[in-house]
Amino acid sequence: MALALPRLSKAAKARLWFLMFAGKIIGVFLVLLAMGFLPAILGGTPVHAQGATYTPHETSMMNSINTVWTLVAAFLVFGMQPGFVMLEAGFARRRETVNVLMECIFDTCLCGLLFWAFGYAFMFSHGNGFIGYHWFFLSGAPDTYETTGVPVIAHWIFQFAFADTCSTITSGAMIGRTSFRGDILYSIGVTGFIYPIIGHWAWGPDGFLATMGSAGNFLPNIGTGFRDFAGSTVVHTIGGVVSLAGAIVLGPRLGRIFKRDGGGPMAPHNLTIAAVGGFILWFGWYGFNPGSTLSAMDMQGIGRVATNTTLAACGGGMGAMLIALWSGSSKGKFDLGFTTNGFLAGLVAITCPCYWVDPLGAICLGFVAGIFVVLGTYLLEYWRIDDPVGAVPVHGICGIWGTLSLGFFASGKFGATGATGADNSSPVAGLFYGGGTTVLKAQLIGSATITIATFVVAIVMMWLIKQLPHPWNLRVEANGEVGPGGLDVWEHGTDAYPDEAAVIAPVEAVKPRPQFVS
Amino acid sequence: MALALPRLSKAAKARLWFLMFAGKIIGVFLVLLAMGFLPAILGGTPVHAQGATYTPHETSMMNSINTVWTLVAAFLVFGMQPGFVMLEAGFARRRETVNVLMECIFDTCLCGLLFWAFGYAFMFSHGNGFIGYHWFFLSGAPDTYETTGVPVIAHWIFQFAFADTCSTITSGAMIGRTSFRGDILYSIGVTGFIYPIIGHWAWGPDGFLATMGSAGNFLPNIGTGFRDFAGSTVVHTIGGVVSLAGAIVLGPRLGRIFKRDGGGPMAPHNLTIAAVGGFILWFGWYGFNPGSTLSAMDMQGIGRVATNTTLAACGGGMGAMLIALWSGSSKGKFDLGFTTNGFLAGLVAITCPCYWVDPLGAICLGFVAGIFVVLGTYLLEYWRIDDPVGAVPVHGICGIWGTLSLGFFASGKFGATGATGADNSSPVAGLFYGGGTTVLKAQLIGSATITIATFVVAIVMMWLIKQLPHPWNLRVEANGEVGPGGLDVWEHGTDAYPDEAAVIAPVEAVKPRPQFVS
Amino acid sequence: MALALPRLSKAAKARLWFLMFAGKIIGVFLVLLAMGFLPAILGGTPVHAQGATYTPHETSMMNSINTVWTLVAAFLVFGMQPGFVMLEAGFARRRETVNVLMECIFDTCLCGLLFWAFGYAFMFSHGNGFIGYHWFFLSGAPDTYETTGVPVIAHWIFQFAFADTCSTITSGAMIGRTSFRGDILYSIGVTGFIYPIIGHWAWGPDGFLATMGSAGNFLPNIGTGFRDFAGSTVVHTIGGVVSLAGAIVLGPRLGRIFKRDGGGPMAPHNLTIAAVGGFILWFGWYGFNPGSTLSAMDMQGIGRVATNTTLAACGGGMGAMLIALWSGSSKGKFDLGFTTNGFLAGLVAITCPCYWVDPLGAICLGFVAGIFVVLGTYLLEYWRIDDPVGAVPVHGICGIWGTLSLGFFASGKFGATGATGADNSSPVAGLFYGGGTTVLKAQLIGSATITIATFVVAIVMMWLIKQLPHPWNLRVEANGEVGPGGLDVWEHGTDAYPDEAAVIAPVEAVKPRPQFVS
Repeated sequence: MALALPRLSKAAKARLWFLMFAGKIIGVFLVLLAMGFLPAILGGTPVHAQGATYTPHETSMMNSINTVWTLVAAFLVFGMQPGFVMLEAGFARRRETVNVLMECIFDTCLCGLLFWAFGYAFMFSHGNGFIGYHWFFLSGAPDTYETTGVPVIAHWIFQFAFADTCSTITSGAMIGRTSFRGDILYSIGVTGFIYPIIGHWAWGPDGFLATMGSAGNFLPNIGTGFRDFAGSTVVHTIGGVVSLAGAIVLGPRLGRIFKRDGGGPMAPHNLTIAAVGGFILWFGWYGFNPGSTLSAMDMQGIGRVATNTTLAACGGGMGAMLIALWSGSSKGKFDLGFTTNGFLAGLVAITCPCYWVDPLGAICLGFVAGIFVVLGTYLLEYWRIDDPVGAVPVHGICGIWGTLSLGFFASGKFGATGATGADNSSPVAGLFYGGGTTVLKAQLIGSATITIATFVVAIVMMWLIKQLPHPWNLRVEANGEVGPGGLDVWEHGTDAYPDEAAVIAPVEAVKPRPQFVS
Repeated sequence: MALALPRLSKAAKARLWFLMFAGKIIGVFLVLLAMGFLPAILGGTPVHAQGATYTPHETSMMNSINTVWTLVAAFLVFGMQPGFVMLEAGFARRRETVNVLMECIFDTCLCGLLFWAFGYAFMFSHGNGFIGYHWFFLSGAPDTYETTGVPVIAHWIFQFAFADTCSTITSGAMIGRTSFRGDILYSIGVTGFIYPIIGHWAWGPDGFLATMGSAGNFLPNIGTGFRDFAGSTVVHTIGGVVSLAGAIVLGPRLGRIFKRDGGGPMAPHNLTIAAVGGFILWFGWYGFNPGSTLSAMDMQGIGRVATNTTLAACGGGMGAMLIALWSGSSKGKFDLGFTTNGFLAGLVAITCPCYWVDPLGAICLGFVAGIFVVLGTYLLEYWRIDDPVGAVPVHGICGIWGTLSLGFFASGKFGATGATGADNSSPVAGLFYGGGTTVLKAQLIGSATITIATFVVAIVMMWLIKQLPHPWNLRVEANGEVGPGGLDVWEHGTDAYPDEAAVIAPVEAVKPRPQFVS
Repeated sequence: MALALPRLSKAAKARLWFLMFAGKIIGVFLVLLAMGFLPAILGGTPVHAQGATYTPHETSMMNSINTVWTLVAAFLVFGMQPGFVMLEAGFARRRETVNVLMECIFDTCLCGLLFWAFGYAFMFSHGNGFIGYHWFFLSGAPDTYETTGVPVIAHWIFQFAFADTCSTITSGAMIGRTSFRGDILYSIGVTGFIYPIIGHWAWGPDGFLATMGSAGNFLPNIGTGFRDFAGSTVVHTIGGVVSLAGAIVLGPRLGRIFKRDGGGPMAPHNLTIAAVGGFILWFGWYGFNPGSTLSAMDMQGIGRVATNTTLAACGGGMGAMLIALWSGSSKGKFDLGFTTNGFLAGLVAITCPCYWVDPLGAICLGFVAGIFVVLGTYLLEYWRIDDPVGAVPVHGICGIWGTLSLGFFASGKFGATGATGADNSSPVAGLFYGGGTTVLKAQLIGSATITIATFVVAIVMMWLIKQLPHPWNLRVEANGEVGPGGLDVWEHGTDAYPDEAAVIAPVEAVKPRPQFVS
């Protein structure tokens, strides 16, 4: 690294000397022009002149700034993992806590290995509209990722952290009755295949949703195509829908009596940990959304995304708190669980549209997400679907809502970088901002395609694993679920709090009533 | 810091004009000079020449680096929220834990919405010495914040995170007997009005403390005016003083017997969580103080601020541990609560002077803060003021001490950027560094003004809310405070650890003796 | 966003065309050459030309980017402290939790003060091969640290965070029977002397391991010398070996019955906290390793280090989970404690070689570290050494393994910056990559030298402190260890969870059988 200032070589000095005696006024001016100097001299605005070339030094520095930004964002996104594990463990019963912790750790380790071997290749390399098939094991990849100067090796870790997020989401709705070997099997499916391949459709360089509207694409040519800035669909909808498929195939935990049968959710074991985990997730989201520019040159963009992310979370927390205060079983109470899931719902929803909406739009769509997360929870309770952490309402329902919300709230003011592989370079306007239904239609096509495809593949996969003999069956044996010590002792040989007098007692294996029927 | 793009001076233009008509040698040199090249050729030092113009590309890159720095700092400051919530929840009794969690989350959501609507406008827009009255809902604001190249939309989130910190501090001393609706009411007052309007005085572009000493300002013209680099006064004193007003108006929790009546503090419920929260706050403080440069071009400055912040925390922890070891009820014991509050006190104290002191000064003033936090706790106990987390000693007392400490420890060596709107560009020297009492006087005026104003307004506000009928009264009904399940079940419908055999028993509603009297 | 290098506008091209025909070609080219422009015009790659001079503006900006990178990394490394404290507290018994918390906080405060006073001077200033003896109290240090443009004051905080990590590691194996005053004494030894002086050997500007192979060095001249990119040896081996010496001198906790005597590890009190702490450590490691470049100009390097760090952790978690599943007392179970220590072992191991290995190498060496951590734990159990958190296997054994692993897995492809003071500028190849045993020999010399020196010094120091009268004796009195309330009440006057009905009962003071013998 030549950080110290090098001096001019003797040859260069001699040439300069010659130049000074031969004289070349216009040349000097042209050089200045070529370097974007003229605007400064003529009083131009202090933004970089579009027509000016960047020197190699400048390019190198810009790439460096962009790489720092992308890596710091990647670290923040990884920092969501302690948040996830706290949220899920806190909302779990004590008897299934170690299992939750272990799944999050295992899923992260597995995700790293698979995403290195083929996940990144499936998702981000060139191939066809459905799958990428280069860069396996990162070999053969160019030094630098496509549109920005960020090295592929730095882009990998950013995208790994995203994949890991999706992977961790999936376990949320399946807590308490999934066998650990079942978790291994379905995690290989989600992390290695479902997420990267379906993700390729929207974020791959030639994915069929990414290239919607361009020549040769079989989808209807609507406006500027499907857009998902940081993954309301790609990360959250996929994660939430896989969760849902898992929860349906598994059925509820033994002893879970639903509201209309006279019961209610099983008691979580540590709301302190859960709420802190929610806050850590919010913190990590500042890597997720602003980092998705993959560029810090876009100063207004990263600032706007960060602010919109904040305001949507605020709106979501407020919306969920109020709707829970006025409805349902927490009527008259300020419900901590709903409020936490509310700001998370706002964060999930803003993830897709964060670049193109204005702050007011962010607040409104976040507020609506907060309402949806409460109503979604009521709906799952009505359908007798057991989702201990609310993964389906938060990530599934609000992932879909966030994707569609761009169709309503896109402000028509902001154009994005092409960071995600999709052609995002032009501003778009949604229904409420005078843009008609074009954007909404494109979002609907993209969201529906991915939601339906994920659900179908996931339910088949889960069903297949459910047919395996124990211990590879998706659902753990009844003894493991309700016996003394709970799932933790059964699968992991220890309680989460072994240095306590209290021993976890067995619970009654009451079979819940069937899902969806009255 | 010449972050804005300077135009060429008239002289330079004249020289360029001459060059174009006379041509040749001098021109090349002048252009090189204008581009800061000459120092390199002549072997100059590798700092940027002050007189050289920045090219648009350079300006853009510098602004980009500054924006990355400011945003990362903003994220770290937001990362203090999990720390606050852990610290406060850990120091609370189990029966009031959910309430603490919920207040922090609610305050954050509220703060985002109000600071977007008018808080930022009151605080940072132009107006008069007392209040700003532009940029409501961020509309009409320029692209870029005043003195640095950071976009307003990025400056907003940095300042939101500060406002949120102040907002969260206020709840600390009021734990366990504030009604949730009362919290909503006073939080609107603090977040929407008290913090931003009083903050404008010190940090607004035309605040009367910020412009102290300049023409037309009614304050005495003392030296270089009042300085508060990152908010010992603006954030911490305001937060701590509001806390104090709340604790006084509320009175202690039922059953709280003070030391001189034969009792002592009520038992906190989780010191693990509290200590970890303290560490996370320390971590987040690295956004708070170094980020307040709003510029990364000032390399020495951000390094110095980070190091001073560290050393003051170390001094504070050490001071509090030792004074507690030698005094009071923890005599002979190494007290965890005091040590944690000690390093936090050091952090609060260094927040104002971090830019202008040297490492030795930082250690000394931090050590003193550690002593003050223990003595302050004893004083509150003597006055029968119930402050479960020590918010008043940590943020109030040490906020004032930190502000004044600049008058003692300012080293006279370091000049700051004008990042906070105040004229901070020149170095100042304090009493111990040969600068006399000038700085101390200015700090005293600023600190006293804000402390007194905040206290008066806060106590009136709290008193008014205390007059409202339940459930809007500031204090929760006695049943809610001491009944089975505690405040948590009363206000939020659930205990923090519902999946446990133990049920929270009611406590005796012993009225504590009156405050301040013997 | 014009991130790609924009081309000249048509008008600019025309003017350039005209210029070239009007006879000013040479001058323009000379100026361009002097400014490093030529590569761009001639179609060169957009990396900065090595031969081109940097303007003062450019140098300043690069230094600024590097400083931001270094500081953010420093903050992340400090962010490991909440992780450490959670991991250690979680793995501790409830009766010793406050003690663990307090030691981590105290060690951090002490480390700041000593590292400012003389630790940094011993380690990073010039002196001789064994110790540095300038820059005490940071006075007399230059503005900028040696090889990169990072200010010394920023380099200090980065290195403080490293020293603090080493300091916190040491307490892990000594939990539960060390007196707090004993902790103070040995911490002064480790933080103030052992770590910085031995660290100087490998990382100091003239350390005898750092300059291995250069003229005048007494060590054998093997290849490119000893390398430790981010501290598998300097931070982790030192920390782990000091732990081991402490655990040996202290002996096990009273009542600790080892496996071959019919017992097993004492029950940890909170695996949720422990696992979350592990994840936070992983998060903070992204400052530790990538930040050790001290430069963000090396984009490929920081990306590669981040990715290798991730993959080694994944490999380590997987390796430990599988080997535990197939062996020992957790046979057939997916063990949370081992898996957590497994990914930490992978992180420790990759810390030395992270810059020079490829992703496949990172996975393999991490996987082996995961195996070693489990086997090492079995070995300590067999030797009757009581290590409650596994500090010795994780940091000691895997620190050594990581250092040696460079000799096997160095890819021969990547050359490093000289960021650590050692001559790391050339690529090296290990045994498995066709480089023979040269690197392995150098690593063996470095690792053995530091391991043995640390062990000898540490065991003497611990033994001396063990001779002191109570309460300064290294080991707390038996009453303090086994009495009601445990070590926490004895040393700190409070339990970690005082607001709980359960009181910590005394335990039987069964003396464990002697170490190492059958």
